[in-house]
Amino acid sequence: MPDRIPFNKPYFTGKETEYIETAVKSGHISGNGEYTQKCHQFFESKWGIKKALLTTSCTDALEMAAILLNLQAGDEVIMPSFTFVSTANAFVLRGAKIVFCDSREDHPGMDENTIEALITEKTVAIVPVHYAGVACDMEKIMGLAKKHGLFVVEDAAQAIDSYYTFSDGTTKALGSIGHLAAFSFHETKNIISGEGGMLAINDEQFIKRAEIIWEKGTNRSAFFRGEVNKYGWVDIGSSFLPSEVIAAFLWAQLENLESIQNRRKIIWERYHSLLHNYFNLITIPKYATNNFHIFYINCNSNIERSKLIKKFREYNVISVFHYLSLHSSRYYKSKHDGRELVNCDRYSDCLLRLPLFFELTEMEQNKVVEIIKNFIKEN
Amino acid sequence: MPDRIPFNKPYFTGKETEYIETAVKSGHISGNGEYTQKCHQFFESKWGIKKALLTTSCTDALEMAAILLNLQAGDEVIMPSFTFVSTANAFVLRGAKIVFCDSREDHPGMDENTIEALITEKTVAIVPVHYAGVACDMEKIMGLAKKHGLFVVEDAAQAIDSYYTFSDGTTKALGSIGHLAAFSFHETKNIISGEGGMLAINDEQFIKRAEIIWEKGTNRSAFFRGEVNKYGWVDIGSSFLPSEVIAAFLWAQLENLESIQNRRKIIWERYHSLLHNYFNLITIPKYATNNFHIFYINCNSNIERSKLIKKFREYNVISVFHYLSLHSSRYYKSKHDGRELVNCDRYSDCLLRLPLFFELTEMEQNKVVEIIKNFIKEN
Repeated sequence: MPDRIPFNKPYFTGKETEYIETAVKSGHISGNGEYTQKCHQFFESKWGIKKALLTTSCTDALEMAAILLNLQAGDEVIMPSFTFVSTANAFVLRGAKIVFCDSREDHPGMDENTIEALITEKTVAIVPVHYAGVACDMEKIMGLAKKHGLFVVEDAAQAIDSYYTFSDGTTKALGSIGHLAAFSFHETKNIISGEGGMLAINDEQFIKRAEIIWEKGTNRSAFFRGEVNKYGWVDIGSSFLPSEVIAAFLWAQLENLESIQNRRKIIWERYHSLLHNYFNLITIPKYATNNFHIFYINCNSNIERSKLIKKFREYNVISVFHYLSLHSSRYYKSKHDGRELVNCDRYSDCLLRLPLFFELTEMEQNKVVEIIKNFIKEN
Repeated sequence: MPDRIPFNKPYFTGKETEYIETAVKSGHISGNGEYTQKCHQFFESKWGIKKALLTTSCTDALEMAAILLNLQAGDEVIMPSFTFVSTANAFVLRGAKIVFCDSREDHPGMDENTIEALITEKTVAIVPVHYAGVACDMEKIMGLAKKHGLFVVEDAAQAIDSYYTFSDGTTKALGSIGHLAAFSFHETKNIISGEGGMLAINDEQFIKRAEIIWEKGTNRSAFFRGEVNKYGWVDIGSSFLPSEVIAAFLWAQLENLESIQNRRKIIWERYHSLLHNYFNLITIPKYATNNFHIFYINCNSNIERSKLIKKFREYNVISVFHYLSLHSSRYYKSKHDGRELVNCDRYSDCLLRLPLFFELTEMEQNKVVEIIKNFIKEN
């Protein structure tokens, strides 16, 4: 069997355990210590996020957002069906009804032109998911939100260091545009901490309550700032904050953001130049950037994709499809209103992700491309 | 200013970063890797827990329990008012009404004799909190649960390595008795991982669904066991599983459980022998054991306690009170039925925790005791 080329291999900068050791020696390894603060400041100063709060996962950041929106049973939330279960579950846990919208034809992100027809009196929020770190049409979506009095929660799980340019020429980081946004640092992401996430708050009205919800529903943050004498139970909440062990790990990664992104860019662009003659590859809209999170190809059918995955396996190369349409999942099928979401289903059936990680070598990449070219010849 | 004696100082066995390094090198740092499995097996084999699932916090383990119980809005859950907010919040997040019960006169744990009067047709669960690792009367509580068809969720946050002996002489670890139980590995606990927790499942009917809820509402666990072809969205859930970085840390601690417990025992018993003539100290019921998690004294009044805390501060010694009665919190006061819970209020006003951690020296301990003795003389 040839050497295995995994789909993903977490990259370590070498400083992670050193910083963990420092946290350990400081005697503070529960949440909200120095490394947590450093990470918060990084996001706030670099990307203009008003208030950053690390969480134990992107799922938890989305759950914080759902709590902050004060969702009531029956409230509706519009999101793409081509997304991770947590995008939906976070809102379902608060009693919301999910109204799934289709992907764009040229991109798995939500089709901005299909959103308005889904808005009802019960709609509370729109949740654009920046698939592969490529922006949804935020100008359009923010405009719809303003027009209809809705909130926007960006699912920026994959979108670190990616941007959106408005028609007036201003550019903003993804995750800094919606009222709220959620990032992921799961080991498959560009910047990692094993499991981990962050809530970004861009609408100031949410900051005070977010701190309370983050601290298990207590006003502990206000207590430490000297604003109250004792802290107690003032709201619902959970233990959303991660250990300093996790924050220290994350800090080592954030320090190396640039070199990590540069390396991924090289690999991504090499795939693109070698494969763009063979597939309809990703279209990156003018308003969006690429953060080189995922390199995927669109196969012509589910059967073709299965064959190609099998072919890869014969060479010990791991390629991976992505989301199953949530609107036809076992859990949500009977709750969905029956609309067909053809683009979503197509990405669900045909999209295939190729190995992409910091340490992927040119030789390994050549092998991946060679397998694809041979596969095309043979089929 | 004399050298500071903190209230708590996290203890590190020295192996934590080594194991984290190993996890990092293995290339698997998201959840449910080898260290997570080792921790699960430890709890299952050592304490007879049917199924253990690490979580990012004890709060999250309690939330998993609340989801597993399928609570509906208006369902009632009985628990002590003298507990951490998360004990209550986890159930409030699912729409439950909390019915608070008083503490025992001789111990902050729930008074088992007051529970039955609180049971109504809407009661779904009883949540005994083993304060300071000292067991609630589990035989009585399990009996009530059986009689009325209720579930028991042990809040075993502080109760690692502590036991309950039934009237027939059999002894069981706390957290292995209730249908479900939640442990904490927060940095203040005997065994730590910064932030961290675990759900213990002792009633087999919950195991399958717990795995799904743990994995964001997907049947991913079944997929990896080869029971299904693809995994998808099948239920509500969240990202409850911690990073392998956290599990590796925890494993280094669990390996040293015995030496950690032995050291805490020495410190605890020394406090007891030096102070039992001056205070009504903790009563440990015959059926319970001590796991040396907390050493507290009961002051005669809130004023006395405040004075003593102040006196400690003058000597740079940090002593800490504990929970504020949840039934009179800003969040729950108007929802509580108005019953007075006098023992709870007394512990809330008068209980004071002394410094207790692995590295506390005899000299430091002498100083703490000396301050108390002088305080008593002067007052």
